[in-house]
Amino acid sequence: MKVDGVPYRTIWLEEDGETVGIIDQTRLPHEFVTVALKTSDDAAHAISAMLVRGAPLIGATAAWGAFLAAKEDSSDDGLKASFAKLLATRPTAVNLRWALERAAETLLKLPANDRIAAAKTLAEQVCDEDVAICRSIGDHGVALIRNIWEASGKSRPVNIMTHCNAGWLATVDWGTATAPIYVADEQGIPVHVWVDETRPRNQGASLTAWELAGHGVPHTLVADNAGGHLMRDGKVDILITGTDRTTANGDVANKIGTYLKALAAHDNDIPFYVGLPGPTIDWTCHDGREIPIEERGQDEVLKLTGRTGSGAIETISIAPESTPAANPAFDVTPSRLVTGLITERGICPASEDGLKSLYPEQE
Amino acid sequence: MKVDGVPYRTIWLEEDGETVGIIDQTRLPHEFVTVALKTSDDAAHAISAMLVRGAPLIGATAAWGAFLAAKEDSSDDGLKASFAKLLATRPTAVNLRWALERAAETLLKLPANDRIAAAKTLAEQVCDEDVAICRSIGDHGVALIRNIWEASGKSRPVNIMTHCNAGWLATVDWGTATAPIYVADEQGIPVHVWVDETRPRNQGASLTAWELAGHGVPHTLVADNAGGHLMRDGKVDILITGTDRTTANGDVANKIGTYLKALAAHDNDIPFYVGLPGPTIDWTCHDGREIPIEERGQDEVLKLTGRTGSGAIETISIAPESTPAANPAFDVTPSRLVTGLITERGICPASEDGLKSLYPEQE
Repeated sequence: MKVDGVPYRTIWLEEDGETVGIIDQTRLPHEFVTVALKTSDDAAHAISAMLVRGAPLIGATAAWGAFLAAKEDSSDDGLKASFAKLLATRPTAVNLRWALERAAETLLKLPANDRIAAAKTLAEQVCDEDVAICRSIGDHGVALIRNIWEASGKSRPVNIMTHCNAGWLATVDWGTATAPIYVADEQGIPVHVWVDETRPRNQGASLTAWELAGHGVPHTLVADNAGGHLMRDGKVDILITGTDRTTANGDVANKIGTYLKALAAHDNDIPFYVGLPGPTIDWTCHDGREIPIEERGQDEVLKLTGRTGSGAIETISIAPESTPAANPAFDVTPSRLVTGLITERGICPASEDGLKSLYPEQE
Repeated sequence: MKVDGVPYRTIWLEEDGETVGIIDQTRLPHEFVTVALKTSDDAAHAISAMLVRGAPLIGATAAWGAFLAAKEDSSDDGLKASFAKLLATRPTAVNLRWALERAAETLLKLPANDRIAAAKTLAEQVCDEDVAICRSIGDHGVALIRNIWEASGKSRPVNIMTHCNAGWLATVDWGTATAPIYVADEQGIPVHVWVDETRPRNQGASLTAWELAGHGVPHTLVADNAGGHLMRDGKVDILITGTDRTTANGDVANKIGTYLKALAAHDNDIPFYVGLPGPTIDWTCHDGREIPIEERGQDEVLKLTGRTGSGAIETISIAPESTPAANPAFDVTPSRLVTGLITERGICPASEDGLKSLYPEQE
């Protein structure tokens, strides 16, 4: 998508054909800084220090990391050591493992001399596939937005609420939850996005707001607490979020707070859709209650980082020193509260039958 | 309640019998500073600059402001001018108007020489009445907590969730939502409080956490987003909040985000109670949808203040410069989601019949 009028992806091969460019997302929303990854160590650091985040982008960065690794040492031992290093950066990231296994499978069977070129082709392919999946989610999801717009007699912008960042910054381009929004914008459908701040890590305020601002999509930031009132007040037409993992029965694990918004949408007859790539579906899990919920460090709740009036980046404490905090990172929204799932293959009900209608190979 | 072992009220007459002491709540939770109000101007400033906040405490401060005013000039004209000045500090605060009208009614009919003593008596009376109301809310509400504790076989602390600050800092002592908690603590019932951060103004993180910490009540701070997950996970036994205004049919206007918590409580069969003094009931309003919702400045969403590592108090921006914010300050929870109302006269269903059973004089 665009950053102040200039089209970007979140990761790209620089014109020299040797280095990989990324956006340092830890500097957002206060500074837009790109970083050149020259070595596989650089790629590993970008993942572990969260310069890049979001499952699809982590996978893409690992694939480009394999390219950088092949340039350094394309021997079997060299590649295996580099892949192990890259895998250790975020051990629980499914896309990371998937991208590295794919790279190992592709490269190790080739003669060492062919591996650099093959790694480059593979990384480009991983990225292009992700873009195609996200674009397809957008193409299917935009129908929902168009229908609302047409039902209003094209009289006003469609008000969409989203939570956390399932935007293009989390993928290679387009995003998952945001893809229908960007496609609507492209097609001239007027939209306005309510951006949940998404405490405690504030991905809404720092990432979703930034990417919508950069692309020129009208949006308004709100505290996570505001969504219920806005829905009761008729200010929200549709909710669209992403998901970290969707179970085979359509339960949706996503950033903490999603469940509260789904409850409010349900209470106000507002449709709640989830944008997801097929690979995010966990066919082995049949009930969201089985999903373990990551408990993160309490400093994410007790402290916040931002820009002071003088432009410095500063971290502040917001609670008494003796107060402890709990920090569950995700919650599970039961399928009964999910109107539908927007996938690269189309939109389906959040149910086992619904999902299998789009992914019959899982029967 | 106690601050690190020392009992306090939020407002008191100093030992000199001349000046009025308050806690500067704008410095919490990072510094505990008391301020001496020597003049009616000091009292007006304390209210307008929000050194004191919370409807009952604003009323009490106005009553003590009337005492300071009477000492300065106890003539009719003098008192009327001072009362007008005090009333202008927070024009929409119902308790402020009520306290000043009561002071005018009491004092203006007396000879000027008697007015200082009468103003002092009245201020003490306003404070003691508030303490008695809150204590009574606590005495009624503690039964709910005791029942949960006994149902658990007295095997574990009772987990109570609250939102915003309806604590003793908002009243003269005990608080409204917190009164049952402090009474439970006094009676030896083990409690643990989940404190919602309460963005955007963070009254939970800065005030509720501070007062619970100071009094020694076990508590844990959480992002507002976490409550739904904690309830689904069986970690919450009961929700108790305060209210800014309750309608005659039992709809509850309270800090933004309360409605989302009420939805989650309802979805998980967890009781949701509201602590309120009878005067908070608006008998003229029969539907929460009639309540106008204050839209506050966007800087409360876009910026946060806290303590840096070096101890300085600093304000930071958390969003892109071009991103606007919306800031509705309250929401309305419909009575169908409210298990009951805890008043100074007892507990009743959140309905017109329920309220009139406790306040038959409103028939």
